[in-house]
Amino acid sequence: MIIDGKKIAAKKYDHIKMSVETSTFSVTLGVILVWENAASLRYIKQKEKWAEFTGIKFVIKKLPKEISERRLLEEIEKMNKDDSINGFIVQMPLPRHISATKVTLAIAPEKDVDGFHPINVGKILIGDNSGFASCTPAGVMEIFKHENIELTGKNVCIVGASNIVGKPMSALLMNAWATVTVCNSRTMNLKLHTSKSDIVIMAAGVPGLLKVDMIHVGTTVIDVWFTVIDGKIHGDADFGTIEMVGNRITPVPGWVGVMTVAMLMENTFKAAKQQNS
Amino acid sequence: MIIDGKKIAAKKYDHIKMSVETSTFSVTLGVILVWENAASLRYIKQKEKWAEFTGIKFVIKKLPKEISERRLLEEIEKMNKDDSINGFIVQMPLPRHISATKVTLAIAPEKDVDGFHPINVGKILIGDNSGFASCTPAGVMEIFKHENIELTGKNVCIVGASNIVGKPMSALLMNAWATVTVCNSRTMNLKLHTSKSDIVIMAAGVPGLLKVDMIHVGTTVIDVWFTVIDGKIHGDADFGTIEMVGNRITPVPGWVGVMTVAMLMENTFKAAKQQNS
Repeated sequence: MIIDGKKIAAKKYDHIKMSVETSTFSVTLGVILVWENAASLRYIKQKEKWAEFTGIKFVIKKLPKEISERRLLEEIEKMNKDDSINGFIVQMPLPRHISATKVTLAIAPEKDVDGFHPINVGKILIGDNSGFASCTPAGVMEIFKHENIELTGKNVCIVGASNIVGKPMSALLMNAWATVTVCNSRTMNLKLHTSKSDIVIMAAGVPGLLKVDMIHVGTTVIDVWFTVIDGKIHGDADFGTIEMVGNRITPVPGWVGVMTVAMLMENTFKAAKQQNS
Repeated sequence: MIIDGKKIAAKKYDHIKMSVETSTFSVTLGVILVWENAASLRYIKQKEKWAEFTGIKFVIKKLPKEISERRLLEEIEKMNKDDSINGFIVQMPLPRHISATKVTLAIAPEKDVDGFHPINVGKILIGDNSGFASCTPAGVMEIFKHENIELTGKNVCIVGASNIVGKPMSALLMNAWATVTVCNSRTMNLKLHTSKSDIVIMAAGVPGLLKVDMIHVGTTVIDVWFTVIDGKIHGDADFGTIEMVGNRITPVPGWVGVMTVAMLMENTFKAAKQQNS
């Protein structure tokens, strides 16, 4: 059975749109773009499109790739202080002469709608809901909610321990009372962990890593990461065979981008709400 | 085989003492005590004793239990601004009329040597070593280091997902390339997870929860939590039988308190070093 992540994202956008329309305050998302490469421009176009759809104002600040780190930090500080901006992001990747860590730390935590600032990462881990969760794992939680997938007491295996997916995903799942296993590239016997799991979340960036014989029938597979080889997009799970034997699975590509952007809009609305309460 | 946590802590204290003695700066730990109950006084006595041993100056600020939250936050702000204090803690528990969350957030992250501020929790999760790790899990990592227990690729099961032990423990282990499973009170079949693990860390607060038939021979058991029943101290693991069949295990009581305080001193030295560089 295919989990239609796109449809779930569409419902989420409708919900956010309604929240924005019925709120007494306006909602504005800022984007700082330092490097106009094709991928970043494509991502930003998506964000602009969905901001417009949901009624969130979209402000973009384009800066030259040669900008100094100090000047960029000044621009971030301007957005921090600008009351008309509720939340903002600095589009990654950054040119090499700029430290991503410094940039992340410079964004005011209450406007950090990407959820990358350590204070937001920490709040999510300790279960403090005033924090902003990283958008991709938050989108996965949205899928569980929409599909009525119970998490309490369930065995969930996350394959891939990155800072933007695997680790914050584990935090959200621990707080939902799941029994969480996080695997990484040094894990000796991946099947040992995937085969005893009710849910497997693939975020490794290794095409076809999860095969059908590594899970039991009835396992829900969420395939997050994708890899492009010769212009073709591959997921981490062997989709065809896994879907065929009756497991629930998300197709790749299709849902991660659109769901991640939905959660960015949700975070922006949340920031505006916090700032107006 | 018994892991002698006390001996490991003693070595750690010697090491910190040497670091303090040979450093060009002085090191000072502050403690704010709001509520003079017997347990808190006992803990503070330990901290004072080991601060003295390692050459760390110890400053205690006792405040009346009836102090308002606002006044306490002012006292915290004073310590934040006091250049003669490198790191400080507010001894828990606090009286009910004071929010522990507000207190934790009020401590300057660069002086938060308990490692409870969300920014430090987040830094530890994303592997940013400028942060301060929560002292008890940091002490467990010290045991692995001292005992030459390899973590890369090993299966580690943590039983108990608390904010002060289980969750930060999982963060430290993920960053050490372990495959980490975190169980909680809703975990359906604990044995499923413990029996496939090379290392089991018990931090649940359920006396005798881990029995010998739940692990394989050769498993290292770190028993962190303890429960006092009728004045007798119980660990989470069935120590006698587990030790008998040849597993490495830490005895309870004996090491957690002294190792946790050692890591508090280490964090204080680290704070002083950061502030003087």
